[in-house]
Amino acid sequence: MTKYVYWFIKDKVDGKSEMKNLLGGKGANLAEMASLGLPVPPGFTITTEVCTYFNKHNKTYPEGLKEQVDEAMKAVEEAMNHKFGDRDNPLLVSVRSGARVSMPGMMDTVLNLGLNDETVLGLAKQTNNERFAYDSYRRFIQMYGDVVMGIPHDEFETILGGLKSEKGVKQDVELNADDLKVLIERYKELFRKKLGKLFPQDVNEQLWGAITAVFESWNNKRAIDYRKINGISDEWGTAVNIVSMVYGNMGDDSATGVAFTRDAATGENIFNGEFLVNAQGEDVVAGIRTPQKLNLACKGDSPLPTLEELMPEVYKELVEIRNKLEKHYRNMQDIEFTIEKGKLWMLQTRNGKRTGKAAVKMAVDMVKEGLIDKDEAIMRVEPKQLDQLLHPIIDPNELKTHKAIAKGLAASPGAAIGKVVFFPDEAVKAKENNEEVILVRMETSPEDVAGMNACNGVLTARGGMTSHAAVVARGMGKTCVVGCEALNVNYETETIEVGEHIIRKGDYLTIDGSTGNVYLGKLKTIDASIEAEFNEYMTWVDEIKKLGVRANADTPHDARVARNFGAKGIGLCRTEHMFFAEDRIKAMREMILSDTVEEREKALEKILPMQKEDFIGIFKAMDGYPVIIRLLDPPLHEFLPKEENLIKELADEMGLSYDKVKEKIADLHEANPMLGHRGCRLGITYPEITKMQAKAIFEAACEVEKDGIKVFPEVMIPLVGIYRELESQREVVEAVAKETLAKYNSNMKYMIGTMIELPRAAVTADEIAKYADFFSFGTNDLTQTTFGFSRDDVGKILNVYLGEKHILKNDPFAVLDRDGVGQLVRIGIEKGRKTKPELEVGICGEHGGEPSSVEFCHLIGMNYVSCSPFRVPIARLAAAQATVREKRNEIKPYGKLTLD
Amino acid sequence: MTKYVYWFIKDKVDGKSEMKNLLGGKGANLAEMASLGLPVPPGFTITTEVCTYFNKHNKTYPEGLKEQVDEAMKAVEEAMNHKFGDRDNPLLVSVRSGARVSMPGMMDTVLNLGLNDETVLGLAKQTNNERFAYDSYRRFIQMYGDVVMGIPHDEFETILGGLKSEKGVKQDVELNADDLKVLIERYKELFRKKLGKLFPQDVNEQLWGAITAVFESWNNKRAIDYRKINGISDEWGTAVNIVSMVYGNMGDDSATGVAFTRDAATGENIFNGEFLVNAQGEDVVAGIRTPQKLNLACKGDSPLPTLEELMPEVYKELVEIRNKLEKHYRNMQDIEFTIEKGKLWMLQTRNGKRTGKAAVKMAVDMVKEGLIDKDEAIMRVEPKQLDQLLHPIIDPNELKTHKAIAKGLAASPGAAIGKVVFFPDEAVKAKENNEEVILVRMETSPEDVAGMNACNGVLTARGGMTSHAAVVARGMGKTCVVGCEALNVNYETETIEVGEHIIRKGDYLTIDGSTGNVYLGKLKTIDASIEAEFNEYMTWVDEIKKLGVRANADTPHDARVARNFGAKGIGLCRTEHMFFAEDRIKAMREMILSDTVEEREKALEKILPMQKEDFIGIFKAMDGYPVIIRLLDPPLHEFLPKEENLIKELADEMGLSYDKVKEKIADLHEANPMLGHRGCRLGITYPEITKMQAKAIFEAACEVEKDGIKVFPEVMIPLVGIYRELESQREVVEAVAKETLAKYNSNMKYMIGTMIELPRAAVTADEIAKYADFFSFGTNDLTQTTFGFSRDDVGKILNVYLGEKHILKNDPFAVLDRDGVGQLVRIGIEKGRKTKPELEVGICGEHGGEPSSVEFCHLIGMNYVSCSPFRVPIARLAAAQATVREKRNEIKPYGKLTLD
Repeated sequence: MTKYVYWFIKDKVDGKSEMKNLLGGKGANLAEMASLGLPVPPGFTITTEVCTYFNKHNKTYPEGLKEQVDEAMKAVEEAMNHKFGDRDNPLLVSVRSGARVSMPGMMDTVLNLGLNDETVLGLAKQTNNERFAYDSYRRFIQMYGDVVMGIPHDEFETILGGLKSEKGVKQDVELNADDLKVLIERYKELFRKKLGKLFPQDVNEQLWGAITAVFESWNNKRAIDYRKINGISDEWGTAVNIVSMVYGNMGDDSATGVAFTRDAATGENIFNGEFLVNAQGEDVVAGIRTPQKLNLACKGDSPLPTLEELMPEVYKELVEIRNKLEKHYRNMQDIEFTIEKGKLWMLQTRNGKRTGKAAVKMAVDMVKEGLIDKDEAIMRVEPKQLDQLLHPIIDPNELKTHKAIAKGLAASPGAAIGKVVFFPDEAVKAKENNEEVILVRMETSPEDVAGMNACNGVLTARGGMTSHAAVVARGMGKTCVVGCEALNVNYETETIEVGEHIIRKGDYLTIDGSTGNVYLGKLKTIDASIEAEFNEYMTWVDEIKKLGVRANADTPHDARVARNFGAKGIGLCRTEHMFFAEDRIKAMREMILSDTVEEREKALEKILPMQKEDFIGIFKAMDGYPVIIRLLDPPLHEFLPKEENLIKELADEMGLSYDKVKEKIADLHEANPMLGHRGCRLGITYPEITKMQAKAIFEAACEVEKDGIKVFPEVMIPLVGIYRELESQREVVEAVAKETLAKYNSNMKYMIGTMIELPRAAVTADEIAKYADFFSFGTNDLTQTTFGFSRDDVGKILNVYLGEKHILKNDPFAVLDRDGVGQLVRIGIEKGRKTKPELEVGICGEHGGEPSSVEFCHLIGMNYVSCSPFRVPIARLAAAQATVREKRNEIKPYGKLTLD
Repeated sequence: MTKYVYWFIKDKVDGKSEMKNLLGGKGANLAEMASLGLPVPPGFTITTEVCTYFNKHNKTYPEGLKEQVDEAMKAVEEAMNHKFGDRDNPLLVSVRSGARVSMPGMMDTVLNLGLNDETVLGLAKQTNNERFAYDSYRRFIQMYGDVVMGIPHDEFETILGGLKSEKGVKQDVELNADDLKVLIERYKELFRKKLGKLFPQDVNEQLWGAITAVFESWNNKRAIDYRKINGISDEWGTAVNIVSMVYGNMGDDSATGVAFTRDAATGENIFNGEFLVNAQGEDVVAGIRTPQKLNLACKGDSPLPTLEELMPEVYKELVEIRNKLEKHYRNMQDIEFTIEKGKLWMLQTRNGKRTGKAAVKMAVDMVKEGLIDKDEAIMRVEPKQLDQLLHPIIDPNELKTHKAIAKGLAASPGAAIGKVVFFPDEAVKAKENNEEVILVRMETSPEDVAGMNACNGVLTARGGMTSHAAVVARGMGKTCVVGCEALNVNYETETIEVGEHIIRKGDYLTIDGSTGNVYLGKLKTIDASIEAEFNEYMTWVDEIKKLGVRANADTPHDARVARNFGAKGIGLCRTEHMFFAEDRIKAMREMILSDTVEEREKALEKILPMQKEDFIGIFKAMDGYPVIIRLLDPPLHEFLPKEENLIKELADEMGLSYDKVKEKIADLHEANPMLGHRGCRLGITYPEITKMQAKAIFEAACEVEKDGIKVFPEVMIPLVGIYRELESQREVVEAVAKETLAKYNSNMKYMIGTMIELPRAAVTADEIAKYADFFSFGTNDLTQTTFGFSRDDVGKILNVYLGEKHILKNDPFAVLDRDGVGQLVRIGIEKGRKTKPELEVGICGEHGGEPSSVEFCHLIGMNYVSCSPFRVPIARLAAAQATVREKRNEIKPYGKLTLD
């Protein structure tokens, strides 16, 4: 006979925490606690296999189940010394769902089951509280009617509302026991009218009704949708838990509370929590009564007595349980308990949520306490939590009283506060006056970089996770929220309309770049601070991880920041950002407006020393590590002004006619600049640009080499889709490199490689690899072309796609799309290494700092990932976790694709 | 001993035409003619193997070669009864390259070899023309100095120029024999000064110098470049042909001429050609003397006597040779001959170039004459030549006197003449006044369609082969040249600047959509006319081809045209083009400007009957064939006006404020519309649009079905990249289909499928196929995203890439890129059919009408191709040729890719 029912009844426990697939998470954990000898309210679990049988066999149950449930109920009765359906001493139970993974609120629960016209009297006697007993009964009828019998919740509420207005009261609690008896009769009448039968007085009928309802709820629409979104198999099924009811509201010797075994905010090893005397679980969190502190250690300045003081014996037992649980689970636990007439019951234990800081501290402490090993410590911190250690965050207490007025994409983490300004030059001016501002734009462009640098945070109404604003802000470590479509930004009136709010220039805003939330006014923030534990932790991370981690950095300053955060080299140095400074853009524009090669070369000569200076600074900052420098990438029109007056100014400066400049700008206009004249297409059209950049790179490298700096330049040709493009640009760069090295008498090692950022580059990577010493996957662009999404326009589409239509699970610009983009990346690596087995392969798209994407890069055998400086620690941790997870066989490296 | 030398000496012939790899094309054909017993000037070929040996062995020759050459020379001397280097009776030879495939002008040639200070006297005596002998000698020194010894051509020209000015003459021919003797001395002096040695008088030294020079020329830069561009292997090498010189300028019993064995223009079976008495080959084509006609049949109104009349015996021999050659080569031949003192020599035969009309007629005639079979007939017509049969062409005679002022991309074939207008409404007005115009635009947009329809031809300065102008014009069968970057179009002044020309509104232009050429003024054209032969030929085509051919057609009219051209169904009906008519765009704009679903539905209801009407017309035209209808694809902003006054007008019409309309337009603006909110993204955001379109399709289908029309609707969801997109849109369409079919009580078969036009769709085609009954590859968009090229902006890049940098061989928007895009197509098909083996797969990008792309579609196992109506015959022929080539093992179907 198959075993369908597992017990957690004192010393009769046959489940355990490893049996989550069979018993669900809740059932397995209750059994685990029971088997540790902890006081768990007796009960049992009907397995997920029954759910599967039920669904496959036309909603019938397997033979033998009924007998096993009866037997288990009997054991529970004995353990509780109550009797199910007994008039004087009734046993009440809850019936709850519980799947392999938590599906909060998706399936059904019935509480207080076992109440009927007779047992309610017993409950009144037991609790010495008639009102409580009848209130429990009417709640049970309502819940049973709704959950089990499908009578709409509203219809009960209408009856309840009617009675309250008859009685002239407003709150449910103002109804007394007699009122509730009337209410119960009316509920029963509703039941009869809707279903043509009486509310079941037979407790076994109640029980089986509830069990069936829970199993059926596995296939309700919202559960199916939830599973689809979260990738949970329809086959898994739910278990059903039947647990004795215990009550914390049976007088002053009863109580209910929640606790953390360590401090969830700081990670300190201090037992802490809150409780209420004579109360039910939900009262603690409802905020109607002020909860009391658990013990003296966490009492602070609370005026109320602690559990340690009020019930020292029970507290002592709780401390013992706490110690036992930590030792057993080897992790900080979030527990719920109820004290019924002086008797402690453990209702739940689970790993507690914690801040990033606490996560790191606990992990380090627990290794030292011998609770866990380093591998486990690596797994204990969510990589994204490290953000909290590097940026100020909004004080969690503020969030109780402030509601976000809008939500955009969380583009660059941290909290930022400032007065609203709309124009970059105002941000610069404000900075000079020591004013703190938030720069609000429809979207940003390269011209805005100075303003972005000057402000506290950037907020845009448009754009996705790889839009200009997002990428640049992330590079600067600047808080940024993008694609906040609810904002109606009006540059002319300098206002933002959002819902009923109008925000004017100078008003304060607080933005949270970790959640995407936007708040009116100034919220309190908590500073980030790196503790000793963090540094120790990150040493372990580096010991374990296999992937290299580099940074995307465009300036010597960013390079130093990146190195401090543990970057071992630069994976992407974008040379174009260097051209937007006021003294440089002029020469750049001169170059663009040139008609002949000679004019262009003259203008480029002015740029050469500036570029060289930048490279010298970056090479010095990265002494000993490789630096990948990408040649000019963006379309040239990005460097030219758009507004009439600026065009006029430029024409005057250059000594050209307005019409001539205007014409050139029109000539450079493109319908789809993302697919236009950019990347290596520039260098092929104007080889003199490539020559100048190569010269700047190699002269800089040779000069710092003379100063004893170890330099490994890697020149990266962008946007290659055709091997001939790379072959031709490589020739140009190589010629300059040879000439320069000869001039400086150097035999420096260098590499010339390419970005793989077009689908064509991926599928023809075998040809391209013949001319490349390295590949760097530019997954921002690759995502654009693979999906056909423009990073600047995708916000509107993602709103729909990530919404209720569930077209996408993640923003593919944030989390690398393994099925589509990832497949092209794999094709690219495999074909590339087929030609050149030793090919160095990395990623420099924004995905390089996103944990799930880093894991993917690990699994497909990349050499390194590269990301914004502030995401380097995240990438390091994600890389270490991938190694541990692989060691644990939780994930497996991808196999070979066979392609011709 | 390896045989290095092959003879073509009267009855001593050991080469043949199949030995092209060893003997090169020229050598093999000379041998072939000789073995047919035709009078070929005796000579021999040194094999390509010697070239390979020469290059691999440090420019030395294999043992035994010298002896074989000596032996061959001796045989030639005997055959010609002249002696190499003999003072009285010298044998002169030419030394020419000849590779496996023709590389015109890439390698070197030396003529008149064997002349020296003594043999020149013999030549003078033989020819009785001292001037001729010395002119030949000085030319030989010049050619030898340049080709063999590397003395720059210019230096000889300077000496020649100097002598002419000393003599006070302008033309070379004004120099007499004595002048030439002086010139020869000066040339020899130059030779001595430059090389420090005398010009070789030893004819064998001359011969080996020339042979070596020809072998070396295989590796000159221009030959290497040419091979790279044309995919010719460096390993093949060239052969060297040594041929006795014969002269057509030895008096009135000498002549030289060219002839076609049939009429190259009409295909008529008439021997025709031209000749000149006492002349050299180049004189016939140089146009200084008027050539005489070959025979009475082709004499026309020429006043000069024919060869048939002048030299009846020689002519008779020539006719016999003509018959022999046609029978032997089973193809129309283009021959060159020389008559030296009454003796006929055949210098060349090759398959003659011909017009499309002639190609078809000859193919059909030759099948009937039993010369070739139908397979061979299929191969005899270049698919693109069929264009000439469907559109008027520029009279070839006009091209002798008119030079193109600019060249763009040949977007849609035919010749068109008209007055220049710049605005679509002017084109419409001109049409009403029966004026013929060419519409000249920077680029076109959907608003311009009425104007495009009204004009004779469209010319744009921007855009590629799949730009709006190109696609729409091709669909209309309207002549079109796009991306003509040399044009400076100024809408304000209504002028075009191009080079030194200024073209004003009202000036005449002639454009050639088959070459991309633009001419000033009105050129004469020749009308297209479809002959009976064409129809017969196309029947054979359809018997042989395996691929289906459908058409891209958006209107009932286009559908009828397509059917007349042999389309068996519609592969792409774009529904959006239906919305630009004046009465429709209003409802469309109302829909776009709606704020709520209800408003949108109301506007859509107005559109419904119009769409339905279109579909009814198309279904009727395609009775019995499938029709694929693509749901709305372009971004909505394309339907809204851009100019201020039109926006105002629209606002008034709609009863909305100007600001509101302006705001909506701004809201719809996208940075990269090609990657924006379009395709199925529209239908997912606004399912009501999909519902309306589905309703129009199925109601139309049901109604025509009642009239006895056989209808097979296939609904195509565009721009799918994520299988959930298709799943979700399929649900919407399927619901409408079921409801509508039930209403009409129909059990019509229909399909719902998708376009594969994004790289992600290709690599996830296995998932997508679960929800698709068919795939149609949208290779225009797929090319855009695979390469990262915007069809609207690519012109500038292609100018560079197709130019001297040789980055690309073909415009990938014109010829499907097999290596990149093609690989994604193969992945898509393979994955799709893995899920659904019976999946119907076609192509509806512009490539569907391009021969090499059609061949690719055949090789990868597509079911059909679909293209503009006017390209349907081309696609049919290309498909048939692919079948024949596969049968002949010239091409092979692609193997399987193995992918997970």
